[in-house]
Amino acid sequence: MCADGNGCVLGIDIGGTKIAVAAVDAGGEMLVEGEFPSPSRDGDAMVEAFGSLIGREFDRYREKGLDVRAVGIAAAGYILQGEGILLESPNIAWRMVPLRQIAVEVTGLPAFLDNDANGAAAGERFVGAARGVDDFVYLTLGTGVGGGVYVGGKPLRGHRGMGAELGHIVIDPNGPVCGCGHRGCLEVFASGTALGREAAGVVAGDTDSVLLEMAGGEAGRITGKMVSRAAERGDRAALRAYEIWSGYLGMGIVDLIHIFDPELVVLGGGVSESGHLFIDSVRRAVSERGIASLVEGVRIVLSELGNEAGVVGAAGLAWEGIRERVL
Amino acid sequence: MCADGNGCVLGIDIGGTKIAVAAVDAGGEMLVEGEFPSPSRDGDAMVEAFGSLIGREFDRYREKGLDVRAVGIAAAGYILQGEGILLESPNIAWRMVPLRQIAVEVTGLPAFLDNDANGAAAGERFVGAARGVDDFVYLTLGTGVGGGVYVGGKPLRGHRGMGAELGHIVIDPNGPVCGCGHRGCLEVFASGTALGREAAGVVAGDTDSVLLEMAGGEAGRITGKMVSRAAERGDRAALRAYEIWSGYLGMGIVDLIHIFDPELVVLGGGVSESGHLFIDSVRRAVSERGIASLVEGVRIVLSELGNEAGVVGAAGLAWEGIRERVL
Repeated sequence: MCADGNGCVLGIDIGGTKIAVAAVDAGGEMLVEGEFPSPSRDGDAMVEAFGSLIGREFDRYREKGLDVRAVGIAAAGYILQGEGILLESPNIAWRMVPLRQIAVEVTGLPAFLDNDANGAAAGERFVGAARGVDDFVYLTLGTGVGGGVYVGGKPLRGHRGMGAELGHIVIDPNGPVCGCGHRGCLEVFASGTALGREAAGVVAGDTDSVLLEMAGGEAGRITGKMVSRAAERGDRAALRAYEIWSGYLGMGIVDLIHIFDPELVVLGGGVSESGHLFIDSVRRAVSERGIASLVEGVRIVLSELGNEAGVVGAAGLAWEGIRERVL
Repeated sequence: MCADGNGCVLGIDIGGTKIAVAAVDAGGEMLVEGEFPSPSRDGDAMVEAFGSLIGREFDRYREKGLDVRAVGIAAAGYILQGEGILLESPNIAWRMVPLRQIAVEVTGLPAFLDNDANGAAAGERFVGAARGVDDFVYLTLGTGVGGGVYVGGKPLRGHRGMGAELGHIVIDPNGPVCGCGHRGCLEVFASGTALGREAAGVVAGDTDSVLLEMAGGEAGRITGKMVSRAAERGDRAALRAYEIWSGYLGMGIVDLIHIFDPELVVLGGGVSESGHLFIDSVRRAVSERGIASLVEGVRIVLSELGNEAGVVGAAGLAWEGIRERVL
């Protein structure tokens, strides 16, 4: 185990419904893994569950002979990087939780904490689409939109560690209201939820669409997943919804290319699993809307990590943290 | 001269109308300076003028006993950082000019090249409003809008060195057409030109404004400078124009804070000379439109360099370059 002599790390991905844990070696191989429910409505129970779960898994992995060297934690929410504290989470009833300190106390190992999107970006650089790339932008397209950025080989964290909130750059100030309370953020245009909403709009003018049937006759109930399934079957309204949605996503990507001049843009998250349905439209939108000398040559690709992005990303944070300490 | 034993650097600021040169010591003090016209319509003459000017000034400074150690060049345009090449300039008829190489050949010294906005940002960190700050965003508000960003103490350059084109993030996709050919960029909303345009709109409903008189009765001729002068005199339309303009600028700053989580935002460029007329409105707009946990506590301040930003910024690039090489 951890046969290459480099040991392995504990990757922990904390979401609103589950906590995933795995021992991951330096090559990104998952050696052991586990998944546990999040008692996300009860903040105290959540903190308790997190601590005991790490302790138990850490013991179990060591009993298997694994040489665990560090802990990486990716959590949904705002992170105060310097302090290793989770400020708050969108779907978990906890606030100001010293996650890094808990992990250090339970395991006696160095621990590294970041938000889930930054973790997924670290995962892409570790063993995914951004291997060996120093300047790239990662977007996770799911219920919401999150982001992670690498600048000159280092993660963009910002002054307090809350940087790269790419879901909340404004695409259209007259757009729909976002969960953050403001209007027209990238998140309200490029999330899976937004894809469903665009489809509902299109279906109003194309009542032959299978989408209406899928949604039990109520356009307002069309989800991103339904749009994906309908588009796979060639449904015109679903394909049109993807096109509109890709245009908005492209607008966000153009802003990010103008800002970061990246080598690569990686699209991850649940929506990207149907990436073949929209990646060409997104590339076209970027090429049409961006400044040619800036957007030409920037590769736009899909995540290579899929379902494992969370826990492999958390492990990526730990490996990155270990290397930074050595340098 | 260069009495502190650290020597000095040659700072060169290349614009469409003039080339400014100065010897600047490690404390940001300008020891000798000069200003020369840009033969900007003739690309070959411009390259020739640049080379002979550096040679002449370098000789002159050495004859004065200055210990010149490096050259910093800030130029309006797109820069290919790795190659030290200016790709193109908005107001100068040259393309693909190896500015860094020319400076190295003429002086035999290390030379460092970046665009004017990144140079001005380096200047703010060197001896201006961002001294000692590792994470900040700089915006230059003039005829156009440019930007520079520091992330973790290093300038954001991007993969090819063309990053931080902050003037071309989109504020409103239905906005006016920008010089870059696309719609609604920050530049068309937050430049001095935009301030004049907003005022023209306001004056249409407030014909008592002194602005109309200043512009010879033609609202379309109102400039940013006129708006500044009128606002100083308490003109209602001018003050209202600043308020609208500040709202847009605030929208751009919110995006940048969400992306970078900076400690500080510095506003420079010609328009910022009247900063007391709008800085409070900008702060208010940011606080109203941003996510509270991200925008609270971020300081928004005016440049401290004024007219000297260009050449002091170029010198800042050189000092920064020397330090990076040593580390």
